[in-house]
Amino acid sequence: MSDTSDSAVRTYIEAHRTAFLDDLADWLRIPSVSAQPDHDADVRRSADWLAAKLKETGFLSTEILHTDGAPAVFAEWLSDDPSAPTVLVYGHHDVQPAAVEDGWHTDPFEPVLKDGRLYARGAADDKGQVFFHTLGVRAHLAVTGRTTPAVNLKLLIEGEEESGSPHFRDLVEAHADRLAADVVIVSDTGMWSETTPTVCTGMRGLAECEITFQGPDQDIHSGSFGGAVPNPATAAARLVAALHDDDERITIPGFYDGIAELTEAERELFSELPFDEAEWLRTAKSRAPHGEKGLTTLERIWARPTAEVNGIGGGYQGPGGKTIIPSSAMVKLSFRLVAGQDPARIEKLVTDWVATRVPAGIGHEITFSAGTRPCLTPLDHPALQSVVRAMGRAFGSKIRFTREGGSGPAADLQDVLGAPVLFLGISVPSDGWHAPNEKVEIDLLLKGVETTAHLWGDLGGC
Amino acid sequence: MSDTSDSAVRTYIEAHRTAFLDDLADWLRIPSVSAQPDHDADVRRSADWLAAKLKETGFLSTEILHTDGAPAVFAEWLSDDPSAPTVLVYGHHDVQPAAVEDGWHTDPFEPVLKDGRLYARGAADDKGQVFFHTLGVRAHLAVTGRTTPAVNLKLLIEGEEESGSPHFRDLVEAHADRLAADVVIVSDTGMWSETTPTVCTGMRGLAECEITFQGPDQDIHSGSFGGAVPNPATAAARLVAALHDDDERITIPGFYDGIAELTEAERELFSELPFDEAEWLRTAKSRAPHGEKGLTTLERIWARPTAEVNGIGGGYQGPGGKTIIPSSAMVKLSFRLVAGQDPARIEKLVTDWVATRVPAGIGHEITFSAGTRPCLTPLDHPALQSVVRAMGRAFGSKIRFTREGGSGPAADLQDVLGAPVLFLGISVPSDGWHAPNEKVEIDLLLKGVETTAHLWGDLGGC
Repeated sequence: MSDTSDSAVRTYIEAHRTAFLDDLADWLRIPSVSAQPDHDADVRRSADWLAAKLKETGFLSTEILHTDGAPAVFAEWLSDDPSAPTVLVYGHHDVQPAAVEDGWHTDPFEPVLKDGRLYARGAADDKGQVFFHTLGVRAHLAVTGRTTPAVNLKLLIEGEEESGSPHFRDLVEAHADRLAADVVIVSDTGMWSETTPTVCTGMRGLAECEITFQGPDQDIHSGSFGGAVPNPATAAARLVAALHDDDERITIPGFYDGIAELTEAERELFSELPFDEAEWLRTAKSRAPHGEKGLTTLERIWARPTAEVNGIGGGYQGPGGKTIIPSSAMVKLSFRLVAGQDPARIEKLVTDWVATRVPAGIGHEITFSAGTRPCLTPLDHPALQSVVRAMGRAFGSKIRFTREGGSGPAADLQDVLGAPVLFLGISVPSDGWHAPNEKVEIDLLLKGVETTAHLWGDLGGC
Repeated sequence: MSDTSDSAVRTYIEAHRTAFLDDLADWLRIPSVSAQPDHDADVRRSADWLAAKLKETGFLSTEILHTDGAPAVFAEWLSDDPSAPTVLVYGHHDVQPAAVEDGWHTDPFEPVLKDGRLYARGAADDKGQVFFHTLGVRAHLAVTGRTTPAVNLKLLIEGEEESGSPHFRDLVEAHADRLAADVVIVSDTGMWSETTPTVCTGMRGLAECEITFQGPDQDIHSGSFGGAVPNPATAAARLVAALHDDDERITIPGFYDGIAELTEAERELFSELPFDEAEWLRTAKSRAPHGEKGLTTLERIWARPTAEVNGIGGGYQGPGGKTIIPSSAMVKLSFRLVAGQDPARIEKLVTDWVATRVPAGIGHEITFSAGTRPCLTPLDHPALQSVVRAMGRAFGSKIRFTREGGSGPAADLQDVLGAPVLFLGISVPSDGWHAPNEKVEIDLLLKGVETTAHLWGDLGGC
């Protein structure tokens, strides 16, 4: 952890920078778009390319893991230190669709280096962030003089993240023994900004359901029957309206049970971030903040659960009017969950609550899809402290903390492997994930290399 | 009003029964389906056929009134008594679509006389009920020995009722002078049942609107932003939920102002009807009655206004889930109105109320379509008493009172002409309006003839 080794890491990275970027560019030329069947072969080619490159990097074992969909890549480089902890790095090698006509200034699959940025689909999400691990572990070995990493290093790089990871949990369960780790590091996230390096400490979980409301056996005349039978669209609306109280707290009994309230220290950490609400609203394409009383926007999206309507429908939605009482209505709800909430328990609470809210004469059905657990790493977790130290050395500045309001397959790793999940990402909001002209900042990409070079030593205690 | 004249009317009708039914069958063979453009020529042919038949009946002036859509028929037979009141009869000559494959036992446009019923599309709705006026006025003349009716008789038979009467109000306004009448008689409704003859005394009015709710400029991620910006689908649902209080009374300030509350006498009249709630629920294809507290089902649908959701929509409505905060949502509302409520005033009340209910950060737009006024004839109105007497003579039993929960173009006649609207219909619920195997009961059809034969004399004071 000396300045000398920091400088040595930088020197090593500088010496290999060109080859590193050339290699990454080669990978970015493979249009591994998992959502488009005509790119299936490209996704397989991307997996093969990565497996070969990891072998060349020094990983002793590399393997294509097949799924019912696109393949993942698994690689292992075990430490010769029998007491070394085991780290599993998660990322993905598939990318979002991209076409010049979407507004790209250049071919999205022909990387362009310009003004310190590398432009290409997947540059930030997620090939760049996967790839910094290849140079990072080499730098770690070079400056420590080791022949094996100070940690047992495992990489699991899936091929269907941009398609919703439909086979990921099955994959993790099938290979749970080999994936076993003391800590999982997810490299598929971002930082606050170029000037405010941060580490993410948690993601919200998710429970999703669809509720259908059955009224008359068919649409009936709102004149002949209006006012005298229950209307399923009204029932759906009343259920949605009853989800929150006047303080925008969720009214479902037991919903908040088990949630750790935000501590003053955590709120203080959130408030240290240079949050610009007007700018955030522009990102949210919204006109006003809104939510649970007494909380800031960051507290609301990072540390509190939600109940949102994702879709609602019933009756006549075409042009003009149609004077009916609809036969049925439906609502799709999603609940973002925070640490202390379990999707299975929320499913039961919601199911019970809905049953009490549907009026006589209206039938209902509620269906949940598979839930996602929240993950949260305590600020004092030793592995998190290692990440903070490693980032601090790479960035030369104080590392602050964020969380992520969304949910992801990382939670499957936490669930199945029983290991804490940490997030190490160097992407910034301007990188344009899923958008035209995606890029990665070369300086930050190399900070990612530098961070991992320090991190394996820190975690391995050397 | 003697038994002698009652008997004479019956004898006259019996003598002309066969020719009357043959003529009606000819008309029913014309498939005047206004909603289907390939039947446009049939609708015109139906108008021509009726105009010719009315001329043959004795109407001194018959005319095709053209509209921007299908033609109406107007006919006049003025009284030679200069003090005779003027009556305008309303009906329609177009019919609902019908095809054997919908479940008809025979060709819907080839009338079949069977078991005292005449089966054909339009038999009850509305050709049969228009056509009884042709024989009715002849019987009136025959038994009174008059050469002109005791009332100035006008018929307006429109051709677009089954398509929503899109040009009807324009038509009435354009010809208001010629249509002027002391009373309007609508022959396009029904009775309670074969054994409970009734007269309808009113219809509800209608105000309809669509409200759109604008949230984020595009769908946004419910993880990244959920819980911190307003959701337009939630806003739509909350608005709908706020429409009613716990007693299912509408909460919009001023909504009930000006409504005449039901009198005990009126409630008593409703309760005299042999209403079977279980049977009614089967008709409503619903499982439970529901509505404003302290009222019966008939009171709710006949005498009280409503606020119903006809359609609601927003966000993702396809299969599976999509974790978004929708960009927009919409709701279509219709308000049935009762006497004392004016659609224009309700439009203003709803608009003002909605504006106070939409949360900060959500934009909204509200659009009303043209409203329909309610109509209600006081039970002691002399013309209504005439109808009750005439029906009583034809049916030989007590005439009870109903109302109609729906709304119709009759209100345009009331509005434009400033004349009270009465309803004289002999159809029964089993006639199958808009359904396969529509029929009319021949006995009731002839009771219609008989009623009008008495009615013109009663109204004309002879």
